[in-house]
Amino acid sequence: MIKAAIIGAISYAGGELLRLLTAHEQVIVTHIADSYSIGEDIKKVFPYLFAYEGYKVEEPDIDYILADSDVVFTAMPHGKAVEVAVKAAAQGKKFIDIAADFRFRDAAVYEDWYNVKHDAPQLTASAVYGLPEIYREKIATSSVVGNPGCYPTASILSLYPLVKNHFVEQGSIIIDAKSGVSGAGRKPTENNSFSQCAESLKAYGVATHRHTPEIEQALSDVDGVKHVINFTPHLIPMSRGILATAYATLKQQMSAEELWELYKETYAKEAFVHVHDLGVWPQTKWVSGSNFCHIGLTYDKRTGRAVICSAIDNLVKGAAGQAIQNMNILFGLPEGMALTMTPTFP
Amino acid sequence: MIKAAIIGAISYAGGELLRLLTAHEQVIVTHIADSYSIGEDIKKVFPYLFAYEGYKVEEPDIDYILADSDVVFTAMPHGKAVEVAVKAAAQGKKFIDIAADFRFRDAAVYEDWYNVKHDAPQLTASAVYGLPEIYREKIATSSVVGNPGCYPTASILSLYPLVKNHFVEQGSIIIDAKSGVSGAGRKPTENNSFSQCAESLKAYGVATHRHTPEIEQALSDVDGVKHVINFTPHLIPMSRGILATAYATLKQQMSAEELWELYKETYAKEAFVHVHDLGVWPQTKWVSGSNFCHIGLTYDKRTGRAVICSAIDNLVKGAAGQAIQNMNILFGLPEGMALTMTPTFP
Amino acid sequence: MIKAAIIGAISYAGGELLRLLTAHEQVIVTHIADSYSIGEDIKKVFPYLFAYEGYKVEEPDIDYILADSDVVFTAMPHGKAVEVAVKAAAQGKKFIDIAADFRFRDAAVYEDWYNVKHDAPQLTASAVYGLPEIYREKIATSSVVGNPGCYPTASILSLYPLVKNHFVEQGSIIIDAKSGVSGAGRKPTENNSFSQCAESLKAYGVATHRHTPEIEQALSDVDGVKHVINFTPHLIPMSRGILATAYATLKQQMSAEELWELYKETYAKEAFVHVHDLGVWPQTKWVSGSNFCHIGLTYDKRTGRAVICSAIDNLVKGAAGQAIQNMNILFGLPEGMALTMTPTFP
Amino acid sequence: MIKAAIIGAISYAGGELLRLLTAHEQVIVTHIADSYSIGEDIKKVFPYLFAYEGYKVEEPDIDYILADSDVVFTAMPHGKAVEVAVKAAAQGKKFIDIAADFRFRDAAVYEDWYNVKHDAPQLTASAVYGLPEIYREKIATSSVVGNPGCYPTASILSLYPLVKNHFVEQGSIIIDAKSGVSGAGRKPTENNSFSQCAESLKAYGVATHRHTPEIEQALSDVDGVKHVINFTPHLIPMSRGILATAYATLKQQMSAEELWELYKETYAKEAFVHVHDLGVWPQTKWVSGSNFCHIGLTYDKRTGRAVICSAIDNLVKGAAGQAIQNMNILFGLPEGMALTMTPTFP
Repeated sequence: MIKAAIIGAISYAGGELLRLLTAHEQVIVTHIADSYSIGEDIKKVFPYLFAYEGYKVEEPDIDYILADSDVVFTAMPHGKAVEVAVKAAAQGKKFIDIAADFRFRDAAVYEDWYNVKHDAPQLTASAVYGLPEIYREKIATSSVVGNPGCYPTASILSLYPLVKNHFVEQGSIIIDAKSGVSGAGRKPTENNSFSQCAESLKAYGVATHRHTPEIEQALSDVDGVKHVINFTPHLIPMSRGILATAYATLKQQMSAEELWELYKETYAKEAFVHVHDLGVWPQTKWVSGSNFCHIGLTYDKRTGRAVICSAIDNLVKGAAGQAIQNMNILFGLPEGMALTMTPTFP
Repeated sequence: MIKAAIIGAISYAGGELLRLLTAHEQVIVTHIADSYSIGEDIKKVFPYLFAYEGYKVEEPDIDYILADSDVVFTAMPHGKAVEVAVKAAAQGKKFIDIAADFRFRDAAVYEDWYNVKHDAPQLTASAVYGLPEIYREKIATSSVVGNPGCYPTASILSLYPLVKNHFVEQGSIIIDAKSGVSGAGRKPTENNSFSQCAESLKAYGVATHRHTPEIEQALSDVDGVKHVINFTPHLIPMSRGILATAYATLKQQMSAEELWELYKETYAKEAFVHVHDLGVWPQTKWVSGSNFCHIGLTYDKRTGRAVICSAIDNLVKGAAGQAIQNMNILFGLPEGMALTMTPTFP
Repeated sequence: MIKAAIIGAISYAGGELLRLLTAHEQVIVTHIADSYSIGEDIKKVFPYLFAYEGYKVEEPDIDYILADSDVVFTAMPHGKAVEVAVKAAAQGKKFIDIAADFRFRDAAVYEDWYNVKHDAPQLTASAVYGLPEIYREKIATSSVVGNPGCYPTASILSLYPLVKNHFVEQGSIIIDAKSGVSGAGRKPTENNSFSQCAESLKAYGVATHRHTPEIEQALSDVDGVKHVINFTPHLIPMSRGILATAYATLKQQMSAEELWELYKETYAKEAFVHVHDLGVWPQTKWVSGSNFCHIGLTYDKRTGRAVICSAIDNLVKGAAGQAIQNMNILFGLPEGMALTMTPTFP
Repeated sequence: MIKAAIIGAISYAGGELLRLLTAHEQVIVTHIADSYSIGEDIKKVFPYLFAYEGYKVEEPDIDYILADSDVVFTAMPHGKAVEVAVKAAAQGKKFIDIAADFRFRDAAVYEDWYNVKHDAPQLTASAVYGLPEIYREKIATSSVVGNPGCYPTASILSLYPLVKNHFVEQGSIIIDAKSGVSGAGRKPTENNSFSQCAESLKAYGVATHRHTPEIEQALSDVDGVKHVINFTPHLIPMSRGILATAYATLKQQMSAEELWELYKETYAKEAFVHVHDLGVWPQTKWVSGSNFCHIGLTYDKRTGRAVICSAIDNLVKGAAGQAIQNMNILFGLPEGMALTMTPTFP
């Protein structure tokens, strides 16, 4: 059995990790830690998580936790996971950060967008970006994984087949993304209060959101071209789900059918990416609670642009589910272990 | 007192017109007609509309209705309002269509996108597009008004200052729009059922939505350039509200402050358009129940694009409110009469 | 013009008061005060309230505020409004408390349920409970009004005709009430966070909620019988609206029609209470944004109980609207001034 | 492997059955039938159900379906499942009806409340009511199961420990229940349209709802006393979930702690019923997607009533999950097989 610890567990991503791990037959959770709610019963914090009867929230004592863990998941404030990663690496333990500390190979980009000093730039340079559909081989031989952001997961998967095949005109990418409110975190703020969000809709972080360089890094990795994009997130009155609507001008005309073929081929062997038939546009609820990414697409002859919609559950494929997918790869397990649940609809 | 009739009243737009007219001191409603629910009490169909105690839904007998009406509002299936307009014009009555029959000067464009034959192409050629912020003078001297679509209202207002000043690079406009479910109409379908929509989000009509040519017509009117755009509507789990997020590459660099100045100046005298300070992004709920359009914007130096968000209530500024605004102009009344209500929040 | 001040304005009830007062032609707002957000522009705190351009949030300097106000509305933490009331009374100013400090004639009951010492028990003993449908005459000659709670407003109106006519068997009343999340206040907490509330439902404060004695006081006032009730509030995933479902065993059999007649007669002259036809059960959205109370009812012959549903907008008839209704009465204005808006649906 | 067929599959309950069966290692689905959408691919009707790639909706040809099925689930209009049950019984196949045709031992009660003639009264008299927590032994030896209604499941479980121990004063039970909109079915109607339901709340079927006699039958079974209850359902703006708030006057005073002990003991061995600590009131979202029933309770000394809240997912424990639980019992499998999923929150 793999011994897994979670630091920063009292978050939506942490709770989701705990939920998904109840179904993982190769994992036992050894520590549930956070700097909040220390000492409280898990069943008090998450009253729907019976499987953790007897567990309490521990303080994030890194050495103590690493001592009997094979893998540590972190979901901590920016900059805080670095120390955990350094110690995990020193002890040969696997490490998966669900926050942003290990998503950027170039620590300077991270420091620039996050306004935090990175204390282990070499480690982030050697970490792998945990998007299995693109970086699977690297993940398999790595120990430090920067789990992708929720928006980047949906965004990169929406454009990967086009970028990989060098079809996209440089500078033409616009990603208009929409997220449920759980993406704003578990801590109550005016921004995620029910009466502020319900029956409403807004953009935020326009032209400044920190997921922008993360998407650019991955797309540029794919085709070696420097991509500078517009990325606009919006807050939607629902708890879960992300839809990324991506626009890209193609270098040459193609039919919608050709575009669809390209996506079907690219993702033919991917268990978690589903390309819908032409004319079908995925709803976020079609992936709710699951690790799937659904894609719908067309080519607009009038404008020469491909339009692609990509739907994920931000807490699963966009966070905890993908983290488990990465863990499975790190440990040589079947990649989909504990991740085959059918989405819940309606 | 102005005698007003509504044909197609048993719709969300019709109900909203009835609501707003309860506050209009110069109007009395003479007929409430539809091809549904004929003979039923209004209070049974709309149990919150006490002001229409005693009114019943009448059948749409055009001659009978025109006989004692000064103005007729129509919200009918595509193609059906034409007969009403022709008769109203013949009798010198004012006519405002809340559907699409009189939005296109070129009936061929209408026929192409709506798959309906237009029975009075000359009349639509001479009708005025009822967006007061652009066509106010023409409306004042007109008798046949094609009230704009909900998406086009938000979309055109989001780009008007840029287009008017010839700042937009041709072919660069993308409008990613989001609407509440009331935009899908009052008739129950799988598409607007609660359990299908709640906690979910999807795009629809991608690259094919009929509001596309309507937006293009208005923008092309403004600067004389042929605009071909990408327009992508999305269905949001809320009843009311539209947010249009518009992207346009500018011909020259400008600061966000300059962009903001341009919008402030352009809309300085517009009572219903409010440009928020830089950094403030409007929520649809800030305009709920009101005739306002809220705008937030920035310029992204990294990509050379302006990003503008425009929020309206789809049933008010996007339909019934704007129709009353047009009626006020047609009759020489203060433009904001019955439209000064403060939005309801939260 | 009546000069009105609001202390505790940066709340949902305060914002609603500001919204409704924009439509009141006899009132000008002189002060908007709170202990939060002091010095901030109102348009920053409430970006949809343009009518207060130029206003800032003032600190709650009672003497300064009273100096140029004819009436003061308070929406402050428990116990805090007492000082304002004492000073207002001393200066002959009208005073309306939207919180609970002046709802109980017996300060001991208040102190018992609210765990706060009441600093002016004589004043609360002489204050009037501001439910116009029952206490109209007393309000007209009063200066200190305790504006009813949201749940009590809906609950008392649901039972008043039965209690008044001595039809209710003592001890049989159960009120199962449901409220939108705005009732939980504007301050962000886990309890009112979107992702905690959306797609969910729960009871709270069962058998302990502080609106219980308030309902009991009013019902006991009506028929002189000591009513002890079960009151169970529930949190519903919507922003606005309260539905109270009341159950009462009747002393004698009656037909549903007779019950309906009783309610129709009792409320025949009440502009804000609407009794629906038998078989029609009011939705909260039918009263959204308005000062109306809608009632639906039946008599269950199998059990001998009347079942009555009463719907209000918790922020209007349940708070700010009723406060204005009380103000209108205090100043001898038409009771419905600024309160005749048609509800917004859908 | 157990061969299972579903007739009436193109419903929310049917879709949920299909979802849950994807996780059942002892079942293979042989037929998916309905009188709608015949011939369509399952993936077109339920685009999130990949596991049924290749399946099509079949017409409900009973003999053909029974031929290669060990168990048939029906979710058909009232009266329609009787023929299936008769034929299944004749062929020795197991039969589980998710609708109401086999919930009443007395066909006359069924006919009275449902206005349908029952074509096999003897069969319904011998069928077992599929609430395992009460009827487990009978189910184990039965072949025809009437799966309980969603409201009755939550309601009966909320009162069972009290009734079983003869603590409830006859005639005192009131159940005020609240359901998400999926309970109103998958067929689009005005009643389940998004814009009618969102941000709103209403009672319906007051004193007339057909789940009333079903609850009464089960409670009367338990203690041999004839229970006549008030049952009031409400429609809540959420897709899934039921909360039943039950009130019962107890024959004798007891402390909340004693009440809690009674419930803990009664349900001590029930894997799917969870009694929360005193002071904790369950949210429906705590059971979302799962087969659990959560209970919270108190005793109100002021009124002598117990107040109990019971939360289930209406489509799982209230329909498809309980049907699988019954199937597991019928076939001698572990009762929780395929039903151990952790709820999805938030």
